[in-house]
Amino acid sequence: MMTRLLALLCCLGLSTAALRAEDGYRLWLRYDLIQDADLRTAYQQQLGQLHVGTNVDTTREMMAVSLRELRNGLRGLLGIHLAPAAGAPGKGSGLALRRLAAGEIGPEGYRLRQQGNRLELAASDDRGFLYGTFHLLRMLQMGESLRGLDVEEVPAKDIRILNHWDNLDGTVERGYAGFSIFNWHTLPDVLDPRYTDYARACASVGINGSVVTNVNANALIFRDDYLEKAAALADVFRPYGVKIYLTARFSAPMELGGLSTADPLDPEVKEWWAAKAKAIYSRIPDFGGFVVKANSEGQPGPREYGRSHAQGANLLADALAPYGGIVMWRAFVYNSDPEADRAAQAYEEFVPLDGQFRDNVVVQVKNGPIDFQPREPFSPLFGATPETPLLLELQITKEYLGQGTHLVGLAPLFAEVLQADTHQGGAGTTVASTVTGLAGVSNVGTARNWTGHPFGQADWYAFGRLAWEPALDPTAIYDEWAALTYGADEAVRKTISRMLVDSWEICVNYMTPLGLHHLMATGHHYGPGPWVDELSRPEWNPAYYHRADSAGIGFDRTLTGSNAVAQYAPAVREKFADPRTCPPEYLLWFHHLPWDWRMDNGKTLWEELCLRYQAGVEGTEWLAAEWASLEGQVDAERHREVSQYLTIQQREAEWWKNACLAYFQTHSRRPFPEGVEAPPHDVEHYQSLDYPYAPGIRPR
Amino acid sequence: MMTRLLALLCCLGLSTAALRAEDGYRLWLRYDLIQDADLRTAYQQQLGQLHVGTNVDTTREMMAVSLRELRNGLRGLLGIHLAPAAGAPGKGSGLALRRLAAGEIGPEGYRLRQQGNRLELAASDDRGFLYGTFHLLRMLQMGESLRGLDVEEVPAKDIRILNHWDNLDGTVERGYAGFSIFNWHTLPDVLDPRYTDYARACASVGINGSVVTNVNANALIFRDDYLEKAAALADVFRPYGVKIYLTARFSAPMELGGLSTADPLDPEVKEWWAAKAKAIYSRIPDFGGFVVKANSEGQPGPREYGRSHAQGANLLADALAPYGGIVMWRAFVYNSDPEADRAAQAYEEFVPLDGQFRDNVVVQVKNGPIDFQPREPFSPLFGATPETPLLLELQITKEYLGQGTHLVGLAPLFAEVLQADTHQGGAGTTVASTVTGLAGVSNVGTARNWTGHPFGQADWYAFGRLAWEPALDPTAIYDEWAALTYGADEAVRKTISRMLVDSWEICVNYMTPLGLHHLMATGHHYGPGPWVDELSRPEWNPAYYHRADSAGIGFDRTLTGSNAVAQYAPAVREKFADPRTCPPEYLLWFHHLPWDWRMDNGKTLWEELCLRYQAGVEGTEWLAAEWASLEGQVDAERHREVSQYLTIQQREAEWWKNACLAYFQTHSRRPFPEGVEAPPHDVEHYQSLDYPYAPGIRPR
Repeated sequence: MMTRLLALLCCLGLSTAALRAEDGYRLWLRYDLIQDADLRTAYQQQLGQLHVGTNVDTTREMMAVSLRELRNGLRGLLGIHLAPAAGAPGKGSGLALRRLAAGEIGPEGYRLRQQGNRLELAASDDRGFLYGTFHLLRMLQMGESLRGLDVEEVPAKDIRILNHWDNLDGTVERGYAGFSIFNWHTLPDVLDPRYTDYARACASVGINGSVVTNVNANALIFRDDYLEKAAALADVFRPYGVKIYLTARFSAPMELGGLSTADPLDPEVKEWWAAKAKAIYSRIPDFGGFVVKANSEGQPGPREYGRSHAQGANLLADALAPYGGIVMWRAFVYNSDPEADRAAQAYEEFVPLDGQFRDNVVVQVKNGPIDFQPREPFSPLFGATPETPLLLELQITKEYLGQGTHLVGLAPLFAEVLQADTHQGGAGTTVASTVTGLAGVSNVGTARNWTGHPFGQADWYAFGRLAWEPALDPTAIYDEWAALTYGADEAVRKTISRMLVDSWEICVNYMTPLGLHHLMATGHHYGPGPWVDELSRPEWNPAYYHRADSAGIGFDRTLTGSNAVAQYAPAVREKFADPRTCPPEYLLWFHHLPWDWRMDNGKTLWEELCLRYQAGVEGTEWLAAEWASLEGQVDAERHREVSQYLTIQQREAEWWKNACLAYFQTHSRRPFPEGVEAPPHDVEHYQSLDYPYAPGIRPR
Repeated sequence: MMTRLLALLCCLGLSTAALRAEDGYRLWLRYDLIQDADLRTAYQQQLGQLHVGTNVDTTREMMAVSLRELRNGLRGLLGIHLAPAAGAPGKGSGLALRRLAAGEIGPEGYRLRQQGNRLELAASDDRGFLYGTFHLLRMLQMGESLRGLDVEEVPAKDIRILNHWDNLDGTVERGYAGFSIFNWHTLPDVLDPRYTDYARACASVGINGSVVTNVNANALIFRDDYLEKAAALADVFRPYGVKIYLTARFSAPMELGGLSTADPLDPEVKEWWAAKAKAIYSRIPDFGGFVVKANSEGQPGPREYGRSHAQGANLLADALAPYGGIVMWRAFVYNSDPEADRAAQAYEEFVPLDGQFRDNVVVQVKNGPIDFQPREPFSPLFGATPETPLLLELQITKEYLGQGTHLVGLAPLFAEVLQADTHQGGAGTTVASTVTGLAGVSNVGTARNWTGHPFGQADWYAFGRLAWEPALDPTAIYDEWAALTYGADEAVRKTISRMLVDSWEICVNYMTPLGLHHLMATGHHYGPGPWVDELSRPEWNPAYYHRADSAGIGFDRTLTGSNAVAQYAPAVREKFADPRTCPPEYLLWFHHLPWDWRMDNGKTLWEELCLRYQAGVEGTEWLAAEWASLEGQVDAERHREVSQYLTIQQREAEWWKNACLAYFQTHSRRPFPEGVEAPPHDVEHYQSLDYPYAPGIRPR
């Protein structure tokens, strides 16, 4: 009988596995039964009982979510049913929840501490309990010991927010994981369970806000019926501590309100926004605020009325202020002056405005001075506006990094920026220390596994973890993610995290080594297009950026050129301005150098450029080999899936290398150095390739 | 120990349930353990062993798929592991597979018969085994007895095909379940498991072909790299017996080939298509053929060169003939002549061409003469082209029937058309008997449950079942689907199938009762727009169709009007031409009648019209009440989901009723009869509503 039951048990397990393939939907929140029986028993003994402190109100919806998560997690991981939370604290061992006074721990923070035979989860607010719950479950998933546990965590940044570039028609600008998870047509009635699962995933890594509409904004979102839809989403997100934000189209008072102007100083315009804010808050009492892209790439803004960005931002800030909302005003602006250096313009525009913004305005600055290129030096704006809080905007979606089909871990990029020393106000002033929060452009979509490429999940995870604690090490983050997502096996985990950590540099090498940037094709940005030089706006052309000619290559941003380097603090400026001290990864960002310029390693610039492209291609071979070595150690479905994407990455890495080198050789007129395979086609071949339906832009 | 194991078992079950919510992805193919232990034991005894006939080649990929399905199914349903297929037939009870000679049973057919202590599945080809396998598993899912089983099934129609109106950019024309499941960007490398699951679902209901591109075609699909992508899909579909087809843009020789003409009589054009066919078949040896929309709604075609549809179709047919491919040439054509009746044009164009088409051309005819309206009389083309085989085109996606958010079962619509007696060549000549196959415009998309509305799955299922056997009763089909999808409980099953069967008439009533048609809004077709009368083409205006004026309403298609009714066989014509014998459901399709016209029930036409709209609204209340009665009997997730959609349907049914009645009253100038709630707003209100992002058209 026993045997038969065991057989049945086996069957069930097997049949579940067979019929419910690993589709990746569960992300890193996989509460499967822990296989190590001893460990499971130890956890069961430590956590078997739940003691709820008398000052913990479990009827609050966020607390209810925490308790549900805890119950589901322990049921899955340990196979135990946690007794319903009782009002009075019991005796004996187990997990105890205790509410701290507001001063005892920071907002959203928590403490997990072994206290005698109890493990205590303590926090001073509901979000703290929520985040502590996920922390505890993560430890169990990773098989970590709870003995002597004593951790206290408080988020380093208040604003930890995702930006969705999702349009109301369901398309996603720069989205490579299907289409928008938000179905505005069926909202507010149909509450796709995915909305809940999304908010839960965000909460599990500490993300506490979500901008659900595209920065290229649509005024329609402010129409009453759409506000009802947004309110329904807000209701779903709220118990997971995720505040909803919307993007505000600056001309909405005209398009939606029928006014003849959107001038920020116009009384009617002010009134319109005030009324709109009231309408929003009547439906969403904890509405977060607006993100605004104004006077940027064709978006309307205050400059059309001769007003400054500060005047524009303050208009909206005044409307939101009575309700506690904030304005995240983007510094991503540049004009079409052929004499100007696009890299210098955000600084030129915003530094003079420092001190003019309302208290509830945050200026949102992309990590680099151009636009999410594979690698950029940090934006000189960081630390340069002492009176104006800044938000660091990172792109999780891989617009310029393989568009979601390449395995490219972005945590090293995020960390490089966060740790960069601005020297503004003295050495050690990292970018991380200058910002009040992080905004990440989301990479999730309708793909069953959320991100298309299974490893795309890792950067959603990494963004959340770094927004919580910017000092975290990328390897440690990916170790965590790999363990949670693919199981706790040490070798598997290490291989995966190494692949992720090394993949960024690999991608930079096969796309834009040595500080090159903006070499991609036009519009969809899919694939290489270094030869493009005929677009109407000069700064949209790759040729504007690489400036390759018979003499050399690179953008001179020193005194002899645009002098954009002068925007950095002296210590940084001096390092970047001298090609001998400028880090090679930014060399051609700041300098136009002869093809025969000698690198420190003795190679000429041309040789080094070629060798880096070659190294990038070889890196993708290494990635494929590393992944192949995990066959049989990772479930077959996900192993196959990643392998298929790696095939694309290898082919496209070769494409980038071949197209770029074939093109640059038309300028350098030099042979390819030893160890570099010559492109199989001439540059005309690569120029002739055409991919009208590459994803990530609005379908035509 | 025993108890502990049982507890663990329970936990596992529970945790699986909790962590793996019912997301609908499994469709009707839910192989969960049969709860009735006696039944399970009986099945185990009957099917425990597998005997494979010596003439059954299990190494063929389609046979391997059948065996895998069988193993997975029995593992899930019965918890047994079917022994690997052995080469020699063993002794004892069990399931036996036997290959029949080609003449013993028709192509794709199978026999399931109890033979002594064996259940024999016999077929003469691999598809027969595949379909027989799904039949057997379906019986188990439904808990049907296998004792004395003796069924033989052969499909009534050879062509059972889905048409996907999916664009290469991932959008779906008239798609309401997300976006396209086909990701052309990542093909051929990434083979989304969904492709396999799609083909498997098709096979399970006997669908044997799939047109994966939109009839509003894009020549790019014929570029070499796209053919590689299509070939990769074909490779996935092949083992499931699903042939791939593509839509052919008539001007492809110009757009892709650079020719100066697409004239079907031009030798270069012929050569281009011949070479293209060769290129396709070199990659897809069993490629099915082309679907063509030509000279229709702006699509290019042979008429531009003064050639007939037959000449156009034959051009492509000749290119495909050497390889056995077919052309499905759509009869959906109409011009912009304000004097013409759009309903008459397909007949006028195609009947004179009868006899001029090549043998491998099939003319594809929509069920009604206009365009998938909620209800239409059958197209007069059916049975009217004795020399030309016709394909019946049905729309599974609900462009005009609530756009995927309304619960509307289409099997009754499909069956009404299939069973309609054309009287062509004598009484009893049903539409079903006149066609060589069925084409269904698919309703699947990237929604996790494939169809958005969970009940949308039922019509994918019903289409396949009716294509296999057009005589099937809609109630029986929905009974099956409900049992497979929601469990075998009799009351649940009956309630669900009754809802589905009755829902069509309900929807017709709240949208277009009494033969009204084409009342929808412009472009996206979402919601009512009976007032629209200013579009550039007369036959795009709802007012063109309802012709409401102070005297009455309806389109006169008798001798005093367009006389389109004359296209039907005499017996049908006579019935339709007389408003006293014309079925009320087609009354205003064929007749313009005074508002005070007396219906057989004594009501005036105006009263009846109002009462039907009201009945439609009340029908949605009934649907909601029926579904509410199942709470607790259907899993909470799917119950909640359907309820949410029913809320939309109730609101939109009211919208349709109110908008249409408010508008028609401006013509009738009559009061609303008793029992009909007056619209709460005047017609201007309904005209002012605006939904720019309603789904189903290419995003703007």
